[in-house]
Amino acid sequence: MTLAVRYTSARTLDTAPAADSEPGPGEVELAPAYVGICGTDLHIFHGDMDARVSAPAVLGHEMAGRVVRVGPGVEGWQPGDAVTVVPLRWDGTCPACLAGHQHICQHLDFIGIDSPGAMQQRWTVPAATLVRLPESLPLDRAALVEPTAVAVHDVGRAGVREGEKVVVVGGGPVGILIALVARATGAEVRVVELNAHRRLLAGELGLSTWDPAADDITGLVQQWTGEAGADVAFEVSGAAAGVETAVDVLGVRGRLCLVAIHSRPREVNLHRFFWRELTLVGARLYERGDFERAVILVADGTIPADRLISKVVPLTEASAAFEALEGGADVMKILVDCIDDTQGAAV
Amino acid sequence: MTLAVRYTSARTLDTAPAADSEPGPGEVELAPAYVGICGTDLHIFHGDMDARVSAPAVLGHEMAGRVVRVGPGVEGWQPGDAVTVVPLRWDGTCPACLAGHQHICQHLDFIGIDSPGAMQQRWTVPAATLVRLPESLPLDRAALVEPTAVAVHDVGRAGVREGEKVVVVGGGPVGILIALVARATGAEVRVVELNAHRRLLAGELGLSTWDPAADDITGLVQQWTGEAGADVAFEVSGAAAGVETAVDVLGVRGRLCLVAIHSRPREVNLHRFFWRELTLVGARLYERGDFERAVILVADGTIPADRLISKVVPLTEASAAFEALEGGADVMKILVDCIDDTQGAAV
Repeated sequence: MTLAVRYTSARTLDTAPAADSEPGPGEVELAPAYVGICGTDLHIFHGDMDARVSAPAVLGHEMAGRVVRVGPGVEGWQPGDAVTVVPLRWDGTCPACLAGHQHICQHLDFIGIDSPGAMQQRWTVPAATLVRLPESLPLDRAALVEPTAVAVHDVGRAGVREGEKVVVVGGGPVGILIALVARATGAEVRVVELNAHRRLLAGELGLSTWDPAADDITGLVQQWTGEAGADVAFEVSGAAAGVETAVDVLGVRGRLCLVAIHSRPREVNLHRFFWRELTLVGARLYERGDFERAVILVADGTIPADRLISKVVPLTEASAAFEALEGGADVMKILVDCIDDTQGAAV
Repeated sequence: MTLAVRYTSARTLDTAPAADSEPGPGEVELAPAYVGICGTDLHIFHGDMDARVSAPAVLGHEMAGRVVRVGPGVEGWQPGDAVTVVPLRWDGTCPACLAGHQHICQHLDFIGIDSPGAMQQRWTVPAATLVRLPESLPLDRAALVEPTAVAVHDVGRAGVREGEKVVVVGGGPVGILIALVARATGAEVRVVELNAHRRLLAGELGLSTWDPAADDITGLVQQWTGEAGADVAFEVSGAAAGVETAVDVLGVRGRLCLVAIHSRPREVNLHRFFWRELTLVGARLYERGDFERAVILVADGTIPADRLISKVVPLTEASAAFEALEGGADVMKILVDCIDDTQGAAV
């Protein structure tokens, strides 16, 4: 019998035995090694997504692990293969899928929200979701591939080009990853972040930061860009003030990439969009190509994943880790160690 | 002595003699024939733009007329040539200009707002602003070239392609022109407009319309698009509800082109931008190429300019026309006839 971390009701997780079952046709059973805790997981934990999540629900979608068993008809995968998972299942028939945008399928099944996630010792997923990891990449670092794929997708949606000036509003894990990916694309980057601990970490990664509570961000951007304004802004804060800042810093024809989830409508300065011919681009999730690029960036050290991992906790302490993150502890990414020492073999 | 219509203070226009002066180097003196009254002119009339407009100010930027005299160094233009004017002067040195976006120069002089406009019998402008009109095109219809250039620019910014489904929110002159240009690009178009008179006119032009007060617009769009949502929406209403409708009707990866001036921040459903990976594109004014395409569309009848002209009033009655438009009269486009019958010759 293996264990799973389950969301049972608002602010409550348990660790319970999970039934073991053979992978079906086209499926693969994995042994997750490390699973990151994401902002969305925190939203679920907080009880904000009870309308969507069927409790008890196994959370987790930022993972790395190994193949344990392959189901009938699965080719190309062997027990022991190191993998991560693109946690998306689409219907293939809705207008979004037919237009080639399967990752935003109108009936998307996001594995880890809409169906059981990775925070367990055995996890069965469609073989089509697997992405191969290089053997040289430690599995804890590889758990950062999924959020890096988010960042790759966002930077792609914004069309960041070499030499452009980019402002990232919000320096949490996704904001930092966006900043690093944008920098790897050849952009000059500034990160706007309220939290001093996060600014410190960003600084250690060689990123320049500004504190919106102390600095006049718009003025600094004007100075930095010779009054032109920034080429691109990423709104990753989720705050009303973050939207305002991201709009204000942009120059003529600037692009604002909207990454954060704003569950309420926000006041937006549409006059500025008109006046400067700005563009706002929504970005959600990722496509397979974003994962493939993310694997390379994490493996070659462009993304210093080890520096972003604040802590690794055992599966039995996931609940305390969620509480710490929710309380706004000075951490970046926390991983849950799901390795099943009693079975040992695979990982 | 010739006459000019001047804005003197909120809700007050006069018709006053204007001093005549030789065109300077690089300048051309025109005899405006017809000048359209635009929404921006109404904003000025209303007193909303007193901070920007130096009274007394000659209004008008939607014009067609003829060259009267050319200044030193001007080549390629002769007295009698039929022309319209791209009413923009840029500094050529700001970051927007250097990036090739002169039409949204950071220190743009919009002729007819920031400097004297066309609603007068003689008007001196830089020769560089002139656009040639075909002799076959009547000058009253040619006064519609400027708003048509706006529509061409907007349809271009939205990237409308053949076969796409387009919703235009707001069926005033610019909305109708956008609908006509989008249709000419091969799109299927629906116009959402509250005013019954405007819906009637749009219908006479072969455009399908919906009444947002009576119809469930989002439901109709879902039906029309087989649950996919629209590819493109244009927000031309300037109303908060218009923004909401334009966001709601879009399908996955849909583009919202923001045309209307929203002087106040608006609540925007940013979650929908994230969820469906929507794009918002601001569009302002036009470039020379938009004017050149607009001349063709008006000249070949794609834009049935005569059907959009509700009324032509003499220069001395401009004030009453502004009042009628401001009162929301059932009209589309009103032209001011500036032809100077006492001098006759040129026009």
